[in-house]
Amino acid sequence: MAREKIVSKLTNLGLNITDDIMLHEPPRMHLPQRNIRNITFNEKENLLELGSKMSTRSFLNVAHSRKFMQTILIASKCKELVAKDKTASIRELYYQLKHTIEGTKENTFDDQSESDPLIVDLETSLGVLREELHLKADDKGTLIGQITLEDSGDFIDCSKLGRSGLSVPSIVEHYKFHEVNADYILVIETGAMFDRLVEEKYHLKNNCIMVSTKGQATRGCRRLVHRLNQELNLPAIMFTDGDPWGYYIYSVMKAGSMALAHESRRLGTPQIQLVGMTMTDIDAYGLEKVTETLKEVDKKRINELLQYPWFQKKEWKEELALMAEKGVRIEQQALASKSLEFVAEEYLPEKIAKKQMLP
Amino acid sequence: MAREKIVSKLTNLGLNITDDIMLHEPPRMHLPQRNIRNITFNEKENLLELGSKMSTRSFLNVAHSRKFMQTILIASKCKELVAKDKTASIRELYYQLKHTIEGTKENTFDDQSESDPLIVDLETSLGVLREELHLKADDKGTLIGQITLEDSGDFIDCSKLGRSGLSVPSIVEHYKFHEVNADYILVIETGAMFDRLVEEKYHLKNNCIMVSTKGQATRGCRRLVHRLNQELNLPAIMFTDGDPWGYYIYSVMKAGSMALAHESRRLGTPQIQLVGMTMTDIDAYGLEKVTETLKEVDKKRINELLQYPWFQKKEWKEELALMAEKGVRIEQQALASKSLEFVAEEYLPEKIAKKQMLP
Repeated sequence: MAREKIVSKLTNLGLNITDDIMLHEPPRMHLPQRNIRNITFNEKENLLELGSKMSTRSFLNVAHSRKFMQTILIASKCKELVAKDKTASIRELYYQLKHTIEGTKENTFDDQSESDPLIVDLETSLGVLREELHLKADDKGTLIGQITLEDSGDFIDCSKLGRSGLSVPSIVEHYKFHEVNADYILVIETGAMFDRLVEEKYHLKNNCIMVSTKGQATRGCRRLVHRLNQELNLPAIMFTDGDPWGYYIYSVMKAGSMALAHESRRLGTPQIQLVGMTMTDIDAYGLEKVTETLKEVDKKRINELLQYPWFQKKEWKEELALMAEKGVRIEQQALASKSLEFVAEEYLPEKIAKKQMLP
Repeated sequence: MAREKIVSKLTNLGLNITDDIMLHEPPRMHLPQRNIRNITFNEKENLLELGSKMSTRSFLNVAHSRKFMQTILIASKCKELVAKDKTASIRELYYQLKHTIEGTKENTFDDQSESDPLIVDLETSLGVLREELHLKADDKGTLIGQITLEDSGDFIDCSKLGRSGLSVPSIVEHYKFHEVNADYILVIETGAMFDRLVEEKYHLKNNCIMVSTKGQATRGCRRLVHRLNQELNLPAIMFTDGDPWGYYIYSVMKAGSMALAHESRRLGTPQIQLVGMTMTDIDAYGLEKVTETLKEVDKKRINELLQYPWFQKKEWKEELALMAEKGVRIEQQALASKSLEFVAEEYLPEKIAKKQMLP
């Protein structure tokens, strides 16, 4: 969305409040409800979505007035950030706004836990991404492979970054894509597996872009994979550990998360598929000796996944049932028991060529 | 160290064992003790060091034989890795070696917690770094700034990486440094502060290399800062939160850690200095309103630091006493309360020019 559009949305929020005041009405703002009862799974599009239930925050309601004041302070600072083309971390935003209100001993904010949820309120009510409000979350993740990116005027050939790769920043809205020679995007859960594939030159030999999420993917990583998939029409394939935690990381990359249901449409990649590790890999590749026994906490998590609407596909119900039945989980690194090169030379190329993937 | 040298050290370890067998002696290996009683602080060089106390691991001692067998397995696999010029994560090493011993129901390794400490045993007894055995720890951290690095044949101009920067890998032994136009290295604790300085183009305006550790620095980051400092003769400056946790991160970067005392000489940067945040900053820059009250766990940590030999310098004793007296800590991000640009345009350039730094 253009910067002018964001500034105008923030300005309108303020104008609505001043209108209320001019009309001698109590100043109010309307916000989508963000509790679980207002979150639905859109099966057709494979995306978590925020429903249409709204709540009202009123300045003259004593229970709301502090939050009301805080929301307006945040909106005002965001308008300044966007107008000046500056970004701030959500921690910096908190510090920028924290002060003692003149003539009182009251602080605008006492803790960052007060400002963080109000940022989400603003995102949902205005229908804009946090990144479009020029606010940054933490960054994590690395990209390497067959693409030239333009970042702030620099052209970065990501196939010429040795074994290091590019740090994925928290905001990737400004990236422009040039010279894309990749056939697909491979998203990898662990940093160690990413390193293995880089060492085997997988991205060069198999003509792809690799992104390491290093655990649960940050917003920056999710938005980047979304953009590569949607704008360049590149298939996206994910490679996680074979356990409920890896599968959940996959599902967030694909369908979004409950906490950020309002942003699934711009952070999710519904077309992504999972190449492994799967329970059938264990027999197919003779990995019985390098599985780990499921702990109680793993079993509990499997049952939770089985409740989620976005795990109701036949293939996923079978996969999770098989995991519970076998009573084991398996890590990406377990493939090293065959040989260090096995994952890059046999496992991935074979499974991807045969399209042996989970939806 | 050259690869041939490492292979020969590993071969000699094996030859000593076969000598013992030929002489009908019980096979034995000698390892430096790694407990706290064998760790000393070298005040002159400002480095933690492992002392000279040794222990013996004997194959015919029932309490040692499993570990003995495991150590030999690891040494043998490392020799193979180095000879083939391959690297492996410590997790992959575990999976590569895990198997059921023929004719028994006994596994070589049941858990990675068995192999990890033996890697350190090998490092200390052979006097080599883990990275020289071609083993990888996790990677984390980002580099940006006025240097061209050569990584596996690619020349990477780190001043032309937009706002993204280079991911610091777990092994940096293979980096070659070219075209260094920097006046110093600035090492930054938090990812958010690194992002702020990148956005303000601090590295370009102040002619430096910036490295973000994102919390406690990985071995890769520590080795990289060490190499930049020692090989290029570049002063190193660190910028952390003003709390006992940030100061400890600084001390590990400078003097090494107890767990890796045997590697301080190759991972530590004794010449590094701390630019902030300091307790005197609070008064000097009027930051009283954006401090945080010390929690019990912070106070306990301050007292622990005061016991460490490497915090016995006058300046550090004063700094920690002042923190306890004020009863507050302060974050890097708190500088945003002045203005977003303040840290890049005033705080850092001023303090660095005036050499207002802690030793």
